[in-house]
Amino acid sequence: METQQQKPYVIGLDLGGTNSVFGIVDQRGEIKATTAIKTQGYDKVEDYVDACVDALQVIIEQVGGLETIKAMGIGAPNANYYNGTIEYAPNLTWAHDCIVPLAKMFSERLGDIPVALTNDANAAALGEMTYGVARGMKNFIMITLGTGVGSGIVVNGQLLYGHDGFAGELGHVTMRRENGRLCGCGRTGCLEAYCSATGVARTAREFLEKRKDKSLLRELDPEKITSLDVSIAAGKGDSLAKEIYEFTGNMLGEACADFAAFSSPEAFVFFGGMAKAGDLIMDPIKKSYDEHVMPIFRGKAQFLVSSLDGASAAVLGASAIGWEI
Amino acid sequence: METQQQKPYVIGLDLGGTNSVFGIVDQRGEIKATTAIKTQGYDKVEDYVDACVDALQVIIEQVGGLETIKAMGIGAPNANYYNGTIEYAPNLTWAHDCIVPLAKMFSERLGDIPVALTNDANAAALGEMTYGVARGMKNFIMITLGTGVGSGIVVNGQLLYGHDGFAGELGHVTMRRENGRLCGCGRTGCLEAYCSATGVARTAREFLEKRKDKSLLRELDPEKITSLDVSIAAGKGDSLAKEIYEFTGNMLGEACADFAAFSSPEAFVFFGGMAKAGDLIMDPIKKSYDEHVMPIFRGKAQFLVSSLDGASAAVLGASAIGWEI
Repeated sequence: METQQQKPYVIGLDLGGTNSVFGIVDQRGEIKATTAIKTQGYDKVEDYVDACVDALQVIIEQVGGLETIKAMGIGAPNANYYNGTIEYAPNLTWAHDCIVPLAKMFSERLGDIPVALTNDANAAALGEMTYGVARGMKNFIMITLGTGVGSGIVVNGQLLYGHDGFAGELGHVTMRRENGRLCGCGRTGCLEAYCSATGVARTAREFLEKRKDKSLLRELDPEKITSLDVSIAAGKGDSLAKEIYEFTGNMLGEACADFAAFSSPEAFVFFGGMAKAGDLIMDPIKKSYDEHVMPIFRGKAQFLVSSLDGASAAVLGASAIGWEI
Repeated sequence: METQQQKPYVIGLDLGGTNSVFGIVDQRGEIKATTAIKTQGYDKVEDYVDACVDALQVIIEQVGGLETIKAMGIGAPNANYYNGTIEYAPNLTWAHDCIVPLAKMFSERLGDIPVALTNDANAAALGEMTYGVARGMKNFIMITLGTGVGSGIVVNGQLLYGHDGFAGELGHVTMRRENGRLCGCGRTGCLEAYCSATGVARTAREFLEKRKDKSLLRELDPEKITSLDVSIAAGKGDSLAKEIYEFTGNMLGEACADFAAFSSPEAFVFFGGMAKAGDLIMDPIKKSYDEHVMPIFRGKAQFLVSSLDGASAAVLGASAIGWEI
């Protein structure tokens, strides 16, 4: 155990549907070496792990060998932290119809170092707590605004996994109980159906259809509008695009007000494409939060944007799991 | 420290607006001695604590003296667990306009035993975890259905206090975002505005006004209907009263579905007047939960009614704090 404390690095694996990106990271969040392979193209998980280990061995040697590695963390879809497994992940050919003990498989191939995995949003929360804007915080909520809306909840300095390991699905609290939009989860009215990238694009189409005012967005094919288009138009001062952000931020603020009643966090930390819009999205979130939160919580929580570089944030988040085990 | 482990009892104080009830409790939840004083009638907190200690000394002697007491727990309104204080409690004359360091005051008067306090719903959760249906559970949510709707959230075997000590206000998540009922907290659409005893009475008045069907409840003065009247009528098979319970249970089930997305608990434990109605309220809650919860959580959580005797539950809950410190 004492020797483990002296090991200076952890491995992070950001396991996405397309790419698997590896980083070897020190305690300050500096990525010492990195590599990647394609996630696709392996029918059997054994072949995937073989390819991973081949790629890893090169960068492990670069930093001084396996004896410098404390542990490995994996951020992956459908990850069960308690069991170290990936379970029925629709986008992974070798795990779409089964439960894969991925943590154990990597550990056995890497000299029995501890390996743990969790989902992307939880990894992002650990990344912020270890290297980012949430350093030193014991109670905060990470909200990732991407294709979906993910979350990682930290209470008493620990990630909230719940009874089954799947806690923290805040993208799927119900925000509209009547006539709510259909969500990817099969239910209606979820936060994600409005505040994900696809949700924002849908809001844009709805606004353009219902209203008559001019907008830069009218120059685009409505069916192809993305949340990035909305962001660019809003950045140019387009008032309709700004209102789309206000609508989105308003709902996020309402949702955060409910989350405060649950865990009363010190901060909400936002990550992802939309969070990059800065004040355009953060101002409506804060305004709406102050309007909707219980008086007892008003003015207590900070609203922060992730300080981790977008390109390496996922690997850093995954690596942060390694310091926790 | 070792001698403390051998001390067989804790003191519980259920500090209500009207009465202050004390119990000396063993580790199995048996109340060995009990006493009470009026909470009102003391302008200064020092006088209140004097009166408490006078009453306590009698029962402390009964169980073998102060050396048998490990600690004291207090369940009280506007209690701040982190600071051991009661803060601006509107119903307490000696604390309505100030911050009172009640834990420290009791500790000094009781031979420096550890004293901690928390709000009633958190105390109830600890009571269930220590002596009741949640024994051995590490992740559950306690929901108290009384004059208000309170909650105590346990994650990783610990009460969730949040950054400021006030987490777990689940009675104040927003269930109706448009045309919601005014809540006692000054906001609109809160769970409490519908599912508290006064909320259920209001639902009864609304149902009676809007509809024409016969009901035992029509024999009562609408302005004086209570949730107990609804419970009695439902128990006699009155269909309108049953529908009022279905409406209430449906909303509680929807709310619990959102809570599952947050902390994925092993169980929801209900306490209070309405929970005593048993299946009349629990069946609609469970049905609604299954309809509204994310598929990943479906069928995983138990729905339980508190097993602690109503009359002594609050004292037991308060005493349970004593085992935690």
